[in-house]
Amino acid sequence: MEIINVGLIGFGTIGTGVARVLRENNQLITQRLGAKLELKKIADLDITTDRGISLPEGVLTTDVNEVLDNPEIDLVIELIGGYEPARTFISRALKAGKHVVTANKALLAKHGDELFQLAEVSGVDLYYEASVGGGIPIIKVIRESLTANRITAISGILNGTCNYILTQMTDGGLEYDDVLAEAQKLGYAEADPTFDVEGIDTAHKLAILAAMAFGTPINFEGVYVEGIANIQPVDIEFAREFGYKIKLLAIAKENQGKIEARVHPTMIPEHHMLAKIDGVFNAIYINADMLGPSLYYGQGAGMLPTASAVVADLIDIARNILGKSHHRLPFLAYQSPDSSNTSYQSIDAISCNYYLRFTTKDQPGVLSKVSGILGDSNISIASVIQKGRNDAGGTVAIVMQTHCAGERDLKYALDKIDALDIIDAQTVVIRMETDL
Amino acid sequence: MEIINVGLIGFGTIGTGVARVLRENNQLITQRLGAKLELKKIADLDITTDRGISLPEGVLTTDVNEVLDNPEIDLVIELIGGYEPARTFISRALKAGKHVVTANKALLAKHGDELFQLAEVSGVDLYYEASVGGGIPIIKVIRESLTANRITAISGILNGTCNYILTQMTDGGLEYDDVLAEAQKLGYAEADPTFDVEGIDTAHKLAILAAMAFGTPINFEGVYVEGIANIQPVDIEFAREFGYKIKLLAIAKENQGKIEARVHPTMIPEHHMLAKIDGVFNAIYINADMLGPSLYYGQGAGMLPTASAVVADLIDIARNILGKSHHRLPFLAYQSPDSSNTSYQSIDAISCNYYLRFTTKDQPGVLSKVSGILGDSNISIASVIQKGRNDAGGTVAIVMQTHCAGERDLKYALDKIDALDIIDAQTVVIRMETDL
Repeated sequence: MEIINVGLIGFGTIGTGVARVLRENNQLITQRLGAKLELKKIADLDITTDRGISLPEGVLTTDVNEVLDNPEIDLVIELIGGYEPARTFISRALKAGKHVVTANKALLAKHGDELFQLAEVSGVDLYYEASVGGGIPIIKVIRESLTANRITAISGILNGTCNYILTQMTDGGLEYDDVLAEAQKLGYAEADPTFDVEGIDTAHKLAILAAMAFGTPINFEGVYVEGIANIQPVDIEFAREFGYKIKLLAIAKENQGKIEARVHPTMIPEHHMLAKIDGVFNAIYINADMLGPSLYYGQGAGMLPTASAVVADLIDIARNILGKSHHRLPFLAYQSPDSSNTSYQSIDAISCNYYLRFTTKDQPGVLSKVSGILGDSNISIASVIQKGRNDAGGTVAIVMQTHCAGERDLKYALDKIDALDIIDAQTVVIRMETDL
Repeated sequence: MEIINVGLIGFGTIGTGVARVLRENNQLITQRLGAKLELKKIADLDITTDRGISLPEGVLTTDVNEVLDNPEIDLVIELIGGYEPARTFISRALKAGKHVVTANKALLAKHGDELFQLAEVSGVDLYYEASVGGGIPIIKVIRESLTANRITAISGILNGTCNYILTQMTDGGLEYDDVLAEAQKLGYAEADPTFDVEGIDTAHKLAILAAMAFGTPINFEGVYVEGIANIQPVDIEFAREFGYKIKLLAIAKENQGKIEARVHPTMIPEHHMLAKIDGVFNAIYINADMLGPSLYYGQGAGMLPTASAVVADLIDIARNILGKSHHRLPFLAYQSPDSSNTSYQSIDAISCNYYLRFTTKDQPGVLSKVSGILGDSNISIASVIQKGRNDAGGTVAIVMQTHCAGERDLKYALDKIDALDIIDAQTVVIRMETDL
């Protein structure tokens, strides 16, 4: 039976998961592949910590060259994350004619096109299923299963930390800071949660999905990003009154060649499938012209779910090696990205419905002034809720849903409104998606 | 640019959808594939009905041999459905060295193994994404994305007609017959709905999924089947009181080499993802050892969703043709089915929780007699609801949830209970799945 030798760079959580999967399901994988995958070398700076897995002598090394220069190794897994030295290691592997599997969304979002070009020149594969949606096979679905379709929109819950925090705030009426602290205690949030809660991790993933869906180069800079740190229980409560839930969504749409890609807290109707995705789970909802809507749901992070995706890539590439059919698939989903289509729409160019919460003085005429400015700015109001006094300060919350309005018009109006002396705090704006 | 010629047998609804997809998204498909798919010949007995699509002269034919004997055609799509002549046509195509794409679940469920063997001998591909879950790419997911996992359970809503009927009954409190008539009027149910409502269509699909998941030959006879025609609004209402919904589920499980495959109305907790799948939509929920739970949701039928899956298969095989890597993948999901594992468990061997609705005379001591027999048969009661008189006949409904019990023990007990003179109608039994 043929043996395909694999080298692993990075023996952290996911790397340990990969070693465990290859060990525990070894026989099963062989029955499916018809060949053996052998983990020949694992390189990490730390080879002394006990990961709870015993490896044959000589597999562990602190010298990455034992992977990259090893002529027996056909396939390299990069799981160290971050930009450097991951970028250098992947580049060296590709140049050496080795296929590469990575879970590194940050690196692909910024340098993916360069790495794919390197892989193309070397005639090898560079797969990355684990980079988006953890164990959910969303990369393969877009690249190989929705190929008959024009994808019109992708909406995803792509960060388990944020979804956990928002779910806890929604179900328990809790404050953001309290839930974040709890999430950190439970291991659902990092000690430094910036990348997650500010939406950057989600934006890295969306940059990859948007390029695949619309056939453009990867354009991380074109993705608008807004995190969840400013979401307050009161807004979750008003959302509920309107029949909505608040989720951190990654949204990418194409309409007549215009592409928008944005990550921000979003109100979605509570009956929508994405509104039903709770806790640390991820889900991706895709609108396509022939298939219509479809949804893919599962664990977006974690040792074994992510390893499941990494090993699926290994098996896929191994099939290419066995069939001598390297580069069977385009790296993203199109044979060549359409470079004329690199400029994504600025956030100011989008239109959607908006949720607005004004904090106003409790005086007569306030509603009239606010709604007057909105009307003058082409913003039409769909519904209004006004509640009694908020607090001892004597402020009142006025909450509105608008009809579809332009972001630029809205900003113009809010600049004026927030400058009024009857307005006591910056107006809270949450975008709504009413027909995902 | 290379051209791959495709022949289509069967120009009904799905066939028309395939022709439309290949026409409308032609350019997009070429950008992804790097080659052109050309629909060279379409064979159907009826070539005069206007399908709303214009085709070049000479494409339509009533002579299937113009597809099967055409040396220019590399790839044949079979969309006539049923056993014959589909089986003969597919066999002829495979023997002639042509790759085949089919949506024919009934044929695969009964004769799949024979057809896969033919394809193997001829060194060609036989793909069938559209046979299960319509446009949902569940075949590819199991065959190529969950390859690192031991699949422990698959639970699916695989028939849109049944799910539509149950959803309407649940949301509207309506009777089965009324909803079925309405569904027929709306085109969601066939004039003869037997295959759908009796669960046979679902069982065909489950036979394919179970073989893929567990590496056995396809074993349609091993699938237990029960339809939805006996579901009554009162049971849906009691289910709601217990916090459950009733769905027609396809369930396949493996536990230490023992496989069970069954299709029947099932009570599932209302917070479970599958309980949230409404209307004509399908969804497949998979438990796997590394990935954990995942769910795949979309339209399980219809012209364009199903055509989306057929054309995805065409593109996949076209990539194999271009890369000269035929038979890159095993036909199901394992290199060779484990023939020692063909005997699926009989329904009598399963264990689960049960919902029981007894129709009893309104007399003292009834509950004691019924629960006494259950206790003597090793069936432990988890909860009981007893309501007042049902009707003028003076009967009373006693509803119970059991703890996990053996099906054989339950049947033994119910034989005794239903023979009691205090029992006025056959006891209603609905299996529950509490930890999918």
